Amino acid sequence: MEIVKKIDLNCDMGESFGVYRVGDDAALIAALIQTPEGCAITSANIACGYHAGDPLVMDRTVRLAARHGVGIGAHPGFPDLLGFGRRAMQLTSNEIENDVLYQVGALAAFARSVGASLVHVKPHGALYNMAAQDLEMARAIAQGVARVDPALILVGLSGSALIDAGRAMGLRVAREGFADRAYNADGTLRSRRLPGAVIETPEAAAERALRMARDGAVTAYTGEEIALQVDTICVHGDTPTAIDIARAIRRRLAEADVVLAPMGAFV
Amino acid sequence: MEIVKKIDLNCDMGESFGVYRVGDDAALIAALIQTPEGCAITSANIACGYHAGDPLVMDRTVRLAARHGVGIGAHPGFPDLLGFGRRAMQLTSNEIENDVLYQVGALAAFARSVGASLVHVKPHGALYNMAAQDLEMARAIAQGVARVDPALILVGLSGSALIDAGRAMGLRVAREGFADRAYNADGTLRSRRLPGAVIETPEAAAERALRMARDGAVTAYTGEEIALQVDTICVHGDTPTAIDIARAIRRRLAEADVVLAPMGAFV
Amino acid sequence: MEIVKKIDLNCDMGESFGVYRVGDDAALIAALIQTPEGCAITSANIACGYHAGDPLVMDRTVRLAARHGVGIGAHPGFPDLLGFGRRAMQLTSNEIENDVLYQVGALAAFARSVGASLVHVKPHGALYNMAAQDLEMARAIAQGVARVDPALILVGLSGSALIDAGRAMGLRVAREGFADRAYNADGTLRSRRLPGAVIETPEAAAERALRMARDGAVTAYTGEEIALQVDTICVHGDTPTAIDIARAIRRRLAEADVVLAPMGAFV
Amino acid sequence: MEIVKKIDLNCDMGESFGVYRVGDDAALIAALIQTPEGCAITSANIACGYHAGDPLVMDRTVRLAARHGVGIGAHPGFPDLLGFGRRAMQLTSNEIENDVLYQVGALAAFARSVGASLVHVKPHGALYNMAAQDLEMARAIAQGVARVDPALILVGLSGSALIDAGRAMGLRVAREGFADRAYNADGTLRSRRLPGAVIETPEAAAERALRMARDGAVTAYTGEEIALQVDTICVHGDTPTAIDIARAIRRRLAEADVVLAPMGAFV
Repeated sequence: MEIVKKIDLNCDMGESFGVYRVGDDAALIAALIQTPEGCAITSANIACGYHAGDPLVMDRTVRLAARHGVGIGAHPGFPDLLGFGRRAMQLTSNEIENDVLYQVGALAAFARSVGASLVHVKPHGALYNMAAQDLEMARAIAQGVARVDPALILVGLSGSALIDAGRAMGLRVAREGFADRAYNADGTLRSRRLPGAVIETPEAAAERALRMARDGAVTAYTGEEIALQVDTICVHGDTPTAIDIARAIRRRLAEADVVLAPMGAFV
Repeated sequence: MEIVKKIDLNCDMGESFGVYRVGDDAALIAALIQTPEGCAITSANIACGYHAGDPLVMDRTVRLAARHGVGIGAHPGFPDLLGFGRRAMQLTSNEIENDVLYQVGALAAFARSVGASLVHVKPHGALYNMAAQDLEMARAIAQGVARVDPALILVGLSGSALIDAGRAMGLRVAREGFADRAYNADGTLRSRRLPGAVIETPEAAAERALRMARDGAVTAYTGEEIALQVDTICVHGDTPTAIDIARAIRRRLAEADVVLAPMGAFV
Repeated sequence: MEIVKKIDLNCDMGESFGVYRVGDDAALIAALIQTPEGCAITSANIACGYHAGDPLVMDRTVRLAARHGVGIGAHPGFPDLLGFGRRAMQLTSNEIENDVLYQVGALAAFARSVGASLVHVKPHGALYNMAAQDLEMARAIAQGVARVDPALILVGLSGSALIDAGRAMGLRVAREGFADRAYNADGTLRSRRLPGAVIETPEAAAERALRMARDGAVTAYTGEEIALQVDTICVHGDTPTAIDIARAIRRRLAEADVVLAPMGAFV
Repeated sequence: MEIVKKIDLNCDMGESFGVYRVGDDAALIAALIQTPEGCAITSANIACGYHAGDPLVMDRTVRLAARHGVGIGAHPGFPDLLGFGRRAMQLTSNEIENDVLYQVGALAAFARSVGASLVHVKPHGALYNMAAQDLEMARAIAQGVARVDPALILVGLSGSALIDAGRAMGLRVAREGFADRAYNADGTLRSRRLPGAVIETPEAAAERALRMARDGAVTAYTGEEIALQVDTICVHGDTPTAIDIARAIRRRLAEADVVLAPMGAFV
């Protein structure tokens, strides 16, 4: 009997706001979703209007994901458009729970309105990073998600407090790995402020993606082999090489018979 | 055989924002909802974060309405917190439809999360007033509401374009009357900028409410009797006499055997 | 004796917001300001944080303009980041006056902080367009500008209510013309919703700029010659051909011995 | 020869936003400024639109302070209206410097526009508290203030990093004390989350104010006598007893011949 390895590829999308653009959302969508050979990603994390996105952008992005069979996810963030949700903010658990409920509830309505379903929730930016370490914040997020729909999948950094909190709340979880980021020996991400934090060559990133997907392992920046169970790999959309990396990952996984599938199908 | 006349009393609620208060929301809720003799209103229009309200306030207000059996409605407005949604804005139909979908979708999630259901949608302020006259805008609102849930009730000024648009969209509608406002002979409201626009004595307002509810009629400012079919009467919360007016209406309707009931039970 | 014709070329700048970009601000600045042959424009209208811009962007853009000798102007707009200040809003005169004072005051502080001076104020988008027709709104803007500094120059559409209001307030005014837009016979701009509203070829736009600058005239869309006194010509930055148009105008004016000069030097 | 002790009393004001109220600004102003016996305070810290306040409120509050001879100060905060500037945010120094410059520049324009001058700057909420400990943040604030006008007075917690940074920047500083708050033995404020953090009886607060003003000392919560040099004492406006405390302080200082004077007159 053969065990088929499955993995999801997710990407942040729908980050425009009014006439404003961040990165090149349109080019990204064209390269990752509207491709002749089928989508390069399987799940989209769609901004919900707090750190990015607006109702028109949400509508457009949800329709696009639905049309192409890409899993629809909510991407809630801190209420900080100016800082794009990347600045840490000190909120109470009650604020976080209800901020998540608000954003996820709104995005779920857009999905339902086009006959699609919301599949997952992945916190954005500082909210994601803080919740990886802070169990109380992680619980507040999980609670907000569960209140919208207990069948939603919560996406968090593999091994993080957010994954623990999601499981404790009875949610399905998807453990995320970063093919283009260096890891510390303890499974945390090497800070972007340090040299070597980002893997820039597509082939190196693709190789790391394969190791995560197939072997549940990654080589730390300091050389150690570490275990890293991942259900979904993040494809960053905000760098010029992102599209090349996404394609290289897709190709490498296919060569190794790892099956790309939306997280909703297997977690 | 006797026909039982039924009428709904609605009131805007949940208009605080962070530490900010508008009017005296707490006093209003205490007087209209948390009363020994039962709620003085049957439906609450709850702000959705654009012109007023925030996730914590929405959560608190939805729970309160649910606990006391008050019908839960969404109260979407223009994206203008500074102007409290009272300043006309020129939005495209597409913007309006999706702004409404966003806000109503978010509030519906709060209702579901506490085991309650969203019953109705009443646009706020300038959005309500413009949609009374502007059929294209009215259609955009109705479309946004229908996309969240075609079973929702759309509340609009009796005789207005919003009511027409809701019906054309296949939505149930609730025709609204204002017991404390003077009417023009054509069924529109006398502008607040003109003298005599507001009925200030509770007894006079209560008498007008009864005529609307029982007889489907109101006396215009210029003396004409006009037909005015109403399913729900608005109780303004932002004046000191609002609570007295609400109580007077309730008492007068009871004396005349008009039954107060949530709009969801009869429209 | 020879009369030297002088004209100013102005362009909107500093419209980014956090990580968000609108158009290609950087390319625009590189092409219009940081050029070996000197700036292609003489005045910059810098967004003030209401419809676009943020404190970091304001600081950066003010410093750039100051370094290159480009006249610094404030570009206040409606409080509507989502709509980029292009959506009409119904504000009171008191709101408009103080919204202008706030934004212009803030930008003036950035200018002073780098040893430069604020020269002019040009309202943005819907505020500009509405004030061209609405004298009460125009007066509110002029009052807001005068309260910051009565020596500021107010920029408005040539022949508009804003120019009248500025003069009546005792402000210096700069009458603006649009080389890339068609005019109606009454001197108003042909609506963008109609065909032929935009002049797209750089040479045609440059020829129109020359006629405005040298002859005080323009040919209306319907063929009439109309008088149009202009002190400054707007170079739009949000189209791919904008830079070509700016260069063509500059070249054509130079050929005809029309001198480009900051508006502060001659109005 | 006698040394006359002088002290300033400051209060936050102008914290409304549109129709929204926080605390009872009007009652506070009536009680502290528009009194027959003269103002109970000597300096007002006026919100600048980021955490509270809007252009109309700023205009109204600045005019009121100017008319009554109360020193006008800017009260910049984090860009977080929802959280009223009380939630810690992780901003870069560059962001903080320019956010302060923006807000103070705007308020200074309102002051100048009514023929008054901005006297001081006191950061608000989390910005104030973080800058008391974080020298880098304190420097960014001081830099933003100095860029608006190096003659401005920077108000900070007595003994804090903000005072150090202001002095290092060459600014005049005003060291602030809190008559209604308990102190730790190291001169920091006892956390509001702990019992006994707030001094509630007006007479006790007044006695502490006198000790700070006259003796440069305060008794810590744990009993130690600690030195505390103060130039200005904060009168909180958001509690019912605030007005009583302000009056008691004023009376107690007068009895002891401590002279109330605007900080601009003596620091």
